[in-house]
Amino acid sequence: MSGGERILGVDPGSRITGYGIIEQDGPRLRFITCGVLRVARYGSLAARILRIHQGLGEVISLHRPHRMAVEEVFVAGNPKAALKLGHARGVILLAAMQHNLPLAEFTPLVVKQAVAGYGRASKEQVQRMVRSLLNLSASPSEDAADALAVAICGANHRSDWLTFTAG
Amino acid sequence: MSGGERILGVDPGSRITGYGIIEQDGPRLRFITCGVLRVARYGSLAARILRIHQGLGEVISLHRPHRMAVEEVFVAGNPKAALKLGHARGVILLAAMQHNLPLAEFTPLVVKQAVAGYGRASKEQVQRMVRSLLNLSASPSEDAADALAVAICGANHRSDWLTFTAG
Repeated sequence: MSGGERILGVDPGSRITGYGIIEQDGPRLRFITCGVLRVARYGSLAARILRIHQGLGEVISLHRPHRMAVEEVFVAGNPKAALKLGHARGVILLAAMQHNLPLAEFTPLVVKQAVAGYGRASKEQVQRMVRSLLNLSASPSEDAADALAVAICGANHRSDWLTFTAG
Repeated sequence: MSGGERILGVDPGSRITGYGIIEQDGPRLRFITCGVLRVARYGSLAARILRIHQGLGEVISLHRPHRMAVEEVFVAGNPKAALKLGHARGVILLAAMQHNLPLAEFTPLVVKQAVAGYGRASKEQVQRMVRSLLNLSASPSEDAADALAVAICGANHRSDWLTFTAG
């Protein structure tokens, strides 16, 4: 492992959760890994969030990020969807706390501004910019690109991190 | 420990989570313990759900329940509150899965019917009936009584349990 600092970005969803890890070394950002946790087939919400928690734990154990950045959710109009998404986000934040990772949350607007310079950028623009910023030979999937964008945003906002101590 | 089966009831909240354990031995219900996890002072939502997950884990390790019944949330109108509550519920369901506890969820209506015979029973009626059904010498606090009511409801609905296997 080089001397850079690894940032794990997460785009939470109760069916598909994207994750991406980059390494920040001064002004340089290096791609480490990205992927998605597809859990829809696990049926119950409880089984899905268990799998999200396990999967993210495996990613953290394997790639040893130093920080976690999570997309803040824009909730409007649908309390049932917000409740479900909350379950997934809950176990994601829990994983950060359990691994003592400093945590930051960013709205989709701030994330898009960080990678595309424009808060209303499309999914495709985000994918393209992530690919360009990290010198990737191919575009990551939409959810993985979103997660990498969150990680890049975290690298650009070094003052917004909170370190929690378990009471 | 006697031969009965222990049921943990949980009333989830992002600030106060109630829990209660009863033991079911044929038609008899016996009080084991109850309490509340007050986490408002932990500030951030992430720190609060970590404490809920830890606290519930301690309760499970100490009292070894065989099942967990959780109150289903009635979400209406406020997506932000639903999102927060979802975070708390997420780590509660996760604890059940991690301890291999069969899980059941009951609406407040069904819970109140189970303990008070009436779906629109007041908080005070629920407290009184829980005290009476479990032969308690004093009334538990509101949130602990709700959790015991969920456990009693679980004892009365033996066919509604789902056993999950971690994929």
